Amino acid sequence: MNTKRIQAEVLKDFVIRVLNCVAVRSSDAAAVAEVLVEADMRGISSHGVSRLGRYVRAVKKGEIDVGATMVFLSERGSTSVLDAANGFGQVAGVMAMDKAIATAQEYGIGMVFVRNSSHFGIAGYYAERALPNSIGIAMSNTSPLVVPTNGKQAVLGTNPIAVAAPTRGDAWLMDFSTSAVSRGKIEVCQREGKPLDPTWALDEDGRPCTDAQHVLDLLSARKAGGIAPMADYKGYGLSFMVDLLSGVLSGSAFGLDVHEHAHANVGHCFLAINIEFLMSLDVYLLRMNGFCEMMRRSAADGNYVFLHGEKESIARRQSISDGVLIKPETETILRALADEFGLDQAQFG
Amino acid sequence: MNTKRIQAEVLKDFVIRVLNCVAVRSSDAAAVAEVLVEADMRGISSHGVSRLGRYVRAVKKGEIDVGATMVFLSERGSTSVLDAANGFGQVAGVMAMDKAIATAQEYGIGMVFVRNSSHFGIAGYYAERALPNSIGIAMSNTSPLVVPTNGKQAVLGTNPIAVAAPTRGDAWLMDFSTSAVSRGKIEVCQREGKPLDPTWALDEDGRPCTDAQHVLDLLSARKAGGIAPMADYKGYGLSFMVDLLSGVLSGSAFGLDVHEHAHANVGHCFLAINIEFLMSLDVYLLRMNGFCEMMRRSAADGNYVFLHGEKESIARRQSISDGVLIKPETETILRALADEFGLDQAQFG
Repeated sequence: MNTKRIQAEVLKDFVIRVLNCVAVRSSDAAAVAEVLVEADMRGISSHGVSRLGRYVRAVKKGEIDVGATMVFLSERGSTSVLDAANGFGQVAGVMAMDKAIATAQEYGIGMVFVRNSSHFGIAGYYAERALPNSIGIAMSNTSPLVVPTNGKQAVLGTNPIAVAAPTRGDAWLMDFSTSAVSRGKIEVCQREGKPLDPTWALDEDGRPCTDAQHVLDLLSARKAGGIAPMADYKGYGLSFMVDLLSGVLSGSAFGLDVHEHAHANVGHCFLAINIEFLMSLDVYLLRMNGFCEMMRRSAADGNYVFLHGEKESIARRQSISDGVLIKPETETILRALADEFGLDQAQFG
Repeated sequence: MNTKRIQAEVLKDFVIRVLNCVAVRSSDAAAVAEVLVEADMRGISSHGVSRLGRYVRAVKKGEIDVGATMVFLSERGSTSVLDAANGFGQVAGVMAMDKAIATAQEYGIGMVFVRNSSHFGIAGYYAERALPNSIGIAMSNTSPLVVPTNGKQAVLGTNPIAVAAPTRGDAWLMDFSTSAVSRGKIEVCQREGKPLDPTWALDEDGRPCTDAQHVLDLLSARKAGGIAPMADYKGYGLSFMVDLLSGVLSGSAFGLDVHEHAHANVGHCFLAINIEFLMSLDVYLLRMNGFCEMMRRSAADGNYVFLHGEKESIARRQSISDGVLIKPETETILRALADEFGLDQAQFG
């Protein structure tokens, strides 16, 4: 198999059909498909349809409840709390972000906290929903992989944070984990036999560790050792903040108690800031354009200063025109699912 | 002169008397003294009373307007915009944060944007005002010193961000600049004749530069070159976000247009999240305590995992019991001001 390109709608349709086979409601399946395929369209394949196999296994084991009824436990002023009832993180994420956006229409700010959720995919997808009238922020805790400064045990997740803001062109969209690197990057080094940067990971005694295989073993065993926070104590602080807002304040699990599988009890936090409470959109776009231009004009000779989200927007445009890039290892996962449920594989050529 | 300790109230009183000599209103002088001395009490002497000489010069040159009348330009739902009218950043910061806290009492969330302000000292001071019922966030843009990823010109400030949350003990308080290092740290390397870490700064062509003197020269000349963002493109994103919220959205200057001196037009952004809209304070404190304990118990053997703000709380307690640490270079600045205005110097021994 070679890397190939598949039309986004075809890919989404396939994801929905697979999820329907494990009794996921059509509207829920559409939300999951949308977020997964959006990740692939933007070139973030680690968070794309390659995850579908894991989701299907989680549903089959009852780790994700396809019958979940998500309810807002409280709606007070600018704040709401959503109980995701152990359902799909994508379904909860869309409900919660849209609630934050609607609240921001009324109060200028909307902030929604989600408990009892599961993996929600790329945080940036939700942040970007706030556009074009609002600025959106999305974050989530995740199961522990990250060791705090001076520690030896992973008690924090890679805890991503995304911020999206409208511009005259593509969205400005920052979306990153608060860890030094992702687990995926360590896996790549292991496959390629490369040593890790000494600032990336820690061994079971809390010492810098450059042996990728050893770090992966430690992460799987979930004993001591793990990934370092980004920028040392600053990233440790940001990661703590993400879990404080997503886990502690939402009423979800936090820190060590966030699980990867059964009863993940992941928490999220979403914020929308209605720009029109502060200035007209035209004035804002003019100012934002000036700010972005300052970044671009600061480029070193022969270099280019990217705005956050720009690379992903370029990849997304190509995905729309030429189809979404699917790597052989992802195709293998999708074909196995097609086999399992007796689905047509014509879309894979 | 040796490093000595002076009682906080004595130090604040001296700052107020100096500011009174340049016609600063007593209530404004008290706010500035409070924020400056709090920084020294916490061991953050770079943002403490050593700045007083600069503030006095700024007032004398008319760069800070002692007659400023600060007004809320809009108060809509959870949001407000404050025009600081070119007055002291500390006065604006206290007004704005207190407004955010009051708004959060009514709506759960309060978010206040400040324009036309000046240097406000330590961001953490404002964030911490939100305690004990709310979580506080404070940020500010600053004059450009930081070069975006792939750039060669400083178009972003060190743009600090602070987040404070109540615990059963000392506040959890994260407060840092989004740059790789502060200008102060580069000055220390220059004085000690040490090379810079290659990830800290860039020369006029955007290449890593380890020559501290050269970087300081570039920063003073305000041409190309400057400090790198923390954690590369992640810090570039965070710094952009801080200026987006503090500058672009507040209606203040942003990026290159934030000045160090005349018409600084600095912008700030403050957020308060009322915990009691989400859960009782008792439940929150129990959960937060559990989260903090997870951090502490993750310590490597013979090591200690600090919570953010813990070191500063320890320093603050010692400052209360033994007096505030004043270094000889700071004493020199304060004595010069006492000489200039004919003030008593008995407090310096």
